[in-house]
Amino acid sequence: MSPIGTLYGIGVGPGDPELLTLKAARVLREVDVVFASAQEKSGRSLALEIASTHLGPSAEVIHLAFAHTFEGVASGEAHRGNAARVLEVLQRPASAAFLTLGDPMTYSTFTYLLSALRRLEPAVPCRVIPGITSFAAVAAEALEPLAEGDEAFAVVSAAKGTGKLGAVLRAVDNAVVMKAYRNIGAVCDLLDREGMGEDSVFSTNCSQPDQRLVRGTAAVRGLDRSYMSLFLAKRGGRGPGGEGE
Amino acid sequence: MSPIGTLYGIGVGPGDPELLTLKAARVLREVDVVFASAQEKSGRSLALEIASTHLGPSAEVIHLAFAHTFEGVASGEAHRGNAARVLEVLQRPASAAFLTLGDPMTYSTFTYLLSALRRLEPAVPCRVIPGITSFAAVAAEALEPLAEGDEAFAVVSAAKGTGKLGAVLRAVDNAVVMKAYRNIGAVCDLLDREGMGEDSVFSTNCSQPDQRLVRGTAAVRGLDRSYMSLFLAKRGGRGPGGEGE
Repeated sequence: MSPIGTLYGIGVGPGDPELLTLKAARVLREVDVVFASAQEKSGRSLALEIASTHLGPSAEVIHLAFAHTFEGVASGEAHRGNAARVLEVLQRPASAAFLTLGDPMTYSTFTYLLSALRRLEPAVPCRVIPGITSFAAVAAEALEPLAEGDEAFAVVSAAKGTGKLGAVLRAVDNAVVMKAYRNIGAVCDLLDREGMGEDSVFSTNCSQPDQRLVRGTAAVRGLDRSYMSLFLAKRGGRGPGGEGE
Repeated sequence: MSPIGTLYGIGVGPGDPELLTLKAARVLREVDVVFASAQEKSGRSLALEIASTHLGPSAEVIHLAFAHTFEGVASGEAHRGNAARVLEVLQRPASAAFLTLGDPMTYSTFTYLLSALRRLEPAVPCRVIPGITSFAAVAAEALEPLAEGDEAFAVVSAAKGTGKLGAVLRAVDNAVVMKAYRNIGAVCDLLDREGMGEDSVFSTNCSQPDQRLVRGTAAVRGLDRSYMSLFLAKRGGRGPGGEGE
């Protein structure tokens, strides 16, 4: 086999440039090429802005278009095309980083790209550097635990509606509802029905300069929609592990 | 009110010292006092080892004893005593950091300490710096997504057994089972029954030099128990968001 570079999936965190890991900063200094996906409307890549101060002087930046749908999921066609582009770079050979906001293994484009890449070349060397998720940032900012003692928490997407949400909420103590922007009203209704409305925290653009944190569904209903928004839904009552007795 | 310093809850990540955030490194350089909880058996604090290279030359380190039970939960008494100790330091006034492995809002001693502290002094200034969780590190190391598309995932503790686990597993696509060490056999049985045994990943000491990653419950049953272990349980079949179509 001809020599081939390593692909690094790098989580750059939720938006605050300081929430990058030391490891991500080091690898960004070392790689030859950085792949960033431009955001659908603005053409701007927040992930690249976060990474940019760490890149080596000769690093090459390549923008990949994923033609995201409203749910934030690109087509298989887009992934195949981008995987071919990435493979071409790795075979120079060159090392490369693919940037993702948050964490590469949590609702990220990276895992689709990796699958497509491995269909083209199963032996591609790949390392993933985990990143701080948006929900960890919201919990930190709100000082609200995701889980204590033997509580369970779930992370679920409301991009396609609230169909699966009720069953998940009933099975756990706390829940993170991602991508709620299009279905905010329906999510609020469901949280209220499950008795989780009052103690829920709603966040937009967490860890960024324009971040906003709102408590209780009553206050959420009038807000503007934002792409980078999520609910941290809590039962309010202490979980079984409660006071640590 | 007399002046009072800020308490920082700092997540130092899963074990690899490079998986600390730039923000955590900066705050560790700046604080006057660092609180670390010694691990029950060894007296050693992995969190402090990770933090130590970043501390300022005049930083004072104070060890707090939490008298952890086997479930890793200290008594309310221990929290009250430690909260009083922390408050005393903040009132010097001094700034202080409390270190936690992983993330301070995810199954950490920090949230109990904060509750106890706020009962003593509701106006304590507190900031939390999120950390990379053990399960994000395992997913990265195993190259296994926690969630793709509109999949849901749950995080649950098996410290007190598998009683709540079945209902949670059935409600989601993928699940992280934390603190499985004492109940590994029962967790394997349950994962097998739920059809998640074959594609599960079991990890001990992830991101540390002696890390180990094993696939499938069949291979897990014979292993030694380790405190820092978890399952990443997957259904194997692609979730509804599957191929990104």
